[in-house]
Amino acid sequence: MATVNRIAILAVGLIGGSLAKAVKAQGFAKEVVGWGRRASSLQTAKQLGVIDSYSLDLAEAVQGADIVVICTPTLIAETVLKDLLKLVGPEAVITDGASVKGNLLRAAQEATGTVPPNLVLAHPIAGSHQSGVAAATVDLYQNHRVIITPTPETDPKALQLISDMWQCAGAEVVIMPVDEHDEILAATSHLPHILAYSLVDALAGHSEASEQENVQNIFRFAAGGFRDFTRIASSDPKMWHDISLANKDALLRMIDLFSDNLADLRESIATAKSDDIFARYERAKAARDQFTELLAQQNAATVTDE
Amino acid sequence: MATVNRIAILAVGLIGGSLAKAVKAQGFAKEVVGWGRRASSLQTAKQLGVIDSYSLDLAEAVQGADIVVICTPTLIAETVLKDLLKLVGPEAVITDGASVKGNLLRAAQEATGTVPPNLVLAHPIAGSHQSGVAAATVDLYQNHRVIITPTPETDPKALQLISDMWQCAGAEVVIMPVDEHDEILAATSHLPHILAYSLVDALAGHSEASEQENVQNIFRFAAGGFRDFTRIASSDPKMWHDISLANKDALLRMIDLFSDNLADLRESIATAKSDDIFARYERAKAARDQFTELLAQQNAATVTDE
Repeated sequence: MATVNRIAILAVGLIGGSLAKAVKAQGFAKEVVGWGRRASSLQTAKQLGVIDSYSLDLAEAVQGADIVVICTPTLIAETVLKDLLKLVGPEAVITDGASVKGNLLRAAQEATGTVPPNLVLAHPIAGSHQSGVAAATVDLYQNHRVIITPTPETDPKALQLISDMWQCAGAEVVIMPVDEHDEILAATSHLPHILAYSLVDALAGHSEASEQENVQNIFRFAAGGFRDFTRIASSDPKMWHDISLANKDALLRMIDLFSDNLADLRESIATAKSDDIFARYERAKAARDQFTELLAQQNAATVTDE
Repeated sequence: MATVNRIAILAVGLIGGSLAKAVKAQGFAKEVVGWGRRASSLQTAKQLGVIDSYSLDLAEAVQGADIVVICTPTLIAETVLKDLLKLVGPEAVITDGASVKGNLLRAAQEATGTVPPNLVLAHPIAGSHQSGVAAATVDLYQNHRVIITPTPETDPKALQLISDMWQCAGAEVVIMPVDEHDEILAATSHLPHILAYSLVDALAGHSEASEQENVQNIFRFAAGGFRDFTRIASSDPKMWHDISLANKDALLRMIDLFSDNLADLRESIATAKSDDIFARYERAKAARDQFTELLAQQNAATVTDE
């Protein structure tokens, strides 16, 4: 497996910090350089041994890097990528760890008029309720999936290098097209988050009681089903705001797919179409039970976080 | 606290069987008589010591009972209640354990032209993934809430007796009007189940691949958020079919409340109204975090099941 001399990590938080720890621990990279907006958190990262050095200047930070990994929040990644494409030549591979891929591909096309062969977008499906470099761990990606989304223009060597990097970090690499990634993630991650936010917001805003009283009254009788169903409504609003906009097109299609299904179910309930209601719930249960079996076959660690 | 001579349990499964075990163990009732459709399961209940005797004949089963508890599935409960009101005089208190209350109140009104003072509808918010009398436990209701929904016509003594019965079983009794019960349950339990079923059904039916392939492809990349969000789609389709129809009016109002909120959010995403999207997610997170605090204050046992 290939190794490299230098990796630049742009934004050294949970995602970037954990990758830095893993590639250093596995000897994949001799040196890891950090870049970010605040010297204080980069200083912490250096003191923790997560990175070897850092710079607040992007050009300086990526100088001589074999791989540059964008680990900023989703929307900021678009700007950073555009800046980066002016600074980095074809000798360095550019990759990232953001949740949406299509917006970054479009940003690269806008910036360069083409699809850079040295751009290999990727999405590690891992995370934690904690954030920041202090929460970074060497095994965050162990047994988790990383989806890599090459284009027809992608340099096969660049793809191989990024695949090696993630496998080095213990991840299972899956390759798929950008559009398919964004559609699948819209369906299984982005849409459920949107629905959970919308449900809690609708219920909390319902009734004429003060918001606090109302929430307490309604939620007082909520049981385990509600607790599980709405857990993801406690996710970071900024992160999901970014994802909602970055993956807008696929997400809107999924909202419509869901809304049409719900409207049909509503109609069947309103008109007491008993057979249709039962058939819908039975189909859903069968599919969900299949998912439960799928989970049981997989290593539990691969599905505990996103 | 009052005690009674005889309680008749109509349908001796998880709910009825657990109540029978608790009232016998606590000495609240000297004798428990079972009724159901299948002699075999009543025979099992008797062998397990859950009930003292049983009859397949409703009139015989409720003969001389001080309390009659309807523990059948939600829609069957309507028919059983109507039959019961012809057989039972005002000396016996009729109650139940179903998830919806308004449909039973209406059934009683249809059958008698009035609201019987000896009818005290109740909803124990407890359950299990298992069903049947073999799964019945003496402590199923321990530290769980039971919502009792009297009407202005309800005999206060009858209300007190049913309240005593549930407290005897270890439950925390909460009193509220029928409409409020059905609205709160529609919001926190029935609507989330409907949404989970609808989401899984929409995703499983999406794409031109065969259903099985498609489910595997989409669900393969689903992570912890999706798993929690869709867990309740594995619930019993028959039970939720019944609840959907029994609580139709409140549920339709809640579906509309939610759909309006989702449509507004969709519009904000489509037009990239960044501030509005963020504000919605932030409000929802604040409300959900409040719910988390509420849960932490309560005994964990009260919220683990529904």
